Amino acid sequence: MTTFPQLDAFRRGPGLIRLVGHRGARGVMPENTMEGFEFTLACGVTLLEFDVAITRDGVPVITHNHHLTRSVARDASGAWLQGEEPKLSALTWDELAQYDVGGLDGQSAYGQRFPDQAYLNGVRIPRLRDLCDLVAQPQHKDVHLMLEIKSDPERLQDATARAEIVAAVIAEVRSAGLTQRTLMHSFDWNLLAECARQAPEMPTSFLTQLPENDADVGEDEATQAGPEITADTYNTLPGLVAEAGGKLWCPYYLDVTADSVLRARELGLIVAVWTVNEPDDIDQMIDLGVDAIVTDYPGRVQRKLLDRGQDWLERG
Amino acid sequence: MTTFPQLDAFRRGPGLIRLVGHRGARGVMPENTMEGFEFTLACGVTLLEFDVAITRDGVPVITHNHHLTRSVARDASGAWLQGEEPKLSALTWDELAQYDVGGLDGQSAYGQRFPDQAYLNGVRIPRLRDLCDLVAQPQHKDVHLMLEIKSDPERLQDATARAEIVAAVIAEVRSAGLTQRTLMHSFDWNLLAECARQAPEMPTSFLTQLPENDADVGEDEATQAGPEITADTYNTLPGLVAEAGGKLWCPYYLDVTADSVLRARELGLIVAVWTVNEPDDIDQMIDLGVDAIVTDYPGRVQRKLLDRGQDWLERG
Repeated sequence: MTTFPQLDAFRRGPGLIRLVGHRGARGVMPENTMEGFEFTLACGVTLLEFDVAITRDGVPVITHNHHLTRSVARDASGAWLQGEEPKLSALTWDELAQYDVGGLDGQSAYGQRFPDQAYLNGVRIPRLRDLCDLVAQPQHKDVHLMLEIKSDPERLQDATARAEIVAAVIAEVRSAGLTQRTLMHSFDWNLLAECARQAPEMPTSFLTQLPENDADVGEDEATQAGPEITADTYNTLPGLVAEAGGKLWCPYYLDVTADSVLRARELGLIVAVWTVNEPDDIDQMIDLGVDAIVTDYPGRVQRKLLDRGQDWLERG
Repeated sequence: MTTFPQLDAFRRGPGLIRLVGHRGARGVMPENTMEGFEFTLACGVTLLEFDVAITRDGVPVITHNHHLTRSVARDASGAWLQGEEPKLSALTWDELAQYDVGGLDGQSAYGQRFPDQAYLNGVRIPRLRDLCDLVAQPQHKDVHLMLEIKSDPERLQDATARAEIVAAVIAEVRSAGLTQRTLMHSFDWNLLAECARQAPEMPTSFLTQLPENDADVGEDEATQAGPEITADTYNTLPGLVAEAGGKLWCPYYLDVTADSVLRARELGLIVAVWTVNEPDDIDQMIDLGVDAIVTDYPGRVQRKLLDRGQDWLERG
């Protein structure tokens, strides 16, 4: 059986619950940017979650939605994107690099969700390679990546497109020497199967969300290309993840229950809940005994853990 | 008449209200630390407020209180400071550097005021020299310092002590070549007079707070060594600042009124209000037409200004 050293970085331990920075630290710094990742690392957070999509010319880039988003992207003149939102798959890397994603439009519903986020200028959508290069530096040897691949909703059934993006992503991770520090993470179960096929040396991490709890205003839907699950059949989900070869199960925090966490643990799965931002919810997830908490506000989770005499890292 | 180029950086303009990071960005990163200043600069904030006190061996260091504070300082073993809080003036720089100030104790009243603040390890109280060295780098040529000198409450009447700390601070600022980018900022009017005497090339900035509004839990009191002012005589305050040679007036945001801001403007004073953190309060200060807002949450003020079509920096 393959052992995956990176799993230990995401597994809870005595007095230890793991902290994963969501898109860097979206509550504080622009999401999915090098500036945000650098901030998150500077806070002593070593687990980074982020999203990867692919440009028309095959460059894996770090961004969440499958189109440039009006509330996030400014054009070369500094104006918020007008008119139709261009698809990433229609733009080359050079074209994409013209846009500034250093801040949110406070007039937008999405912007209003993150009123504390810093507003920067001249911030580009990074390539996966840029983050890999940063993390490959010796001072970041303890950093691990929760690399979410976003399935283009229009190409969910397209096995060729799927194989291509997976190949492009794996090539970058391998080239940076990070296969033992990366999880392949997705809502798309077919895509995760393709990851396991192409890169059996990297474990897969299965995102789930009950349709009734999908309320992430201003973002692409999760488009869970996986089994249809309801609240009634929820406790079967860990079993399905394990059968599919998953090593992590990543449920939405409003879905998850004590029973399902227990079931996951019996199956040897690591449970990482997303995206947990409110202090009461953080407390509840710690009480539930999850392995890892994915958050937009790393400082809040740090404080909650310390208040309980717990930590997110083993200290030397 | 002396002109002070640094004043322009703090003065409002058309569509422009200035943003000053309070102790760096206390809401997000540990206060008065290099890590916090670097974060604040990375957010595109070019005006830094911070506090300077002096060690037993005469080293100006950046910290707020006149004693090491239990809720902020951990000892060499990582434990929160126990027992009596040592006075800064009783410690040498080497002794001070043993303490870690990278986070807040969430059990303390002070810690609970900043629940989002990141928790770092191995963070030292910086010397004034460390910050000056950073800001003297060419990429930070637009950065300006609002350098608050804290009067030791037990030595308010001690002219020798006052002359010594002022001399030590000015020596660092001059040595780094930052006299045209620094304001001398204090609650202590005698100390500001000493600054003007020793360094007439640097303008002075007068902090004020009405005693009835002093409610900064967990911090040294402001110990305003200046005229006794009440709400009834509040509008005389700008005149007193101007007479004392002040170029900036820095009232507590809960004290300030439209009339007093108008009066200050008539006198040619720049008005910088502190410390404004709640979104409604930020709106109110923008409406009042202050020159600058000092905040623990730079991202919040950035967002508020942009929502109104305003900015905190002149863009090239």
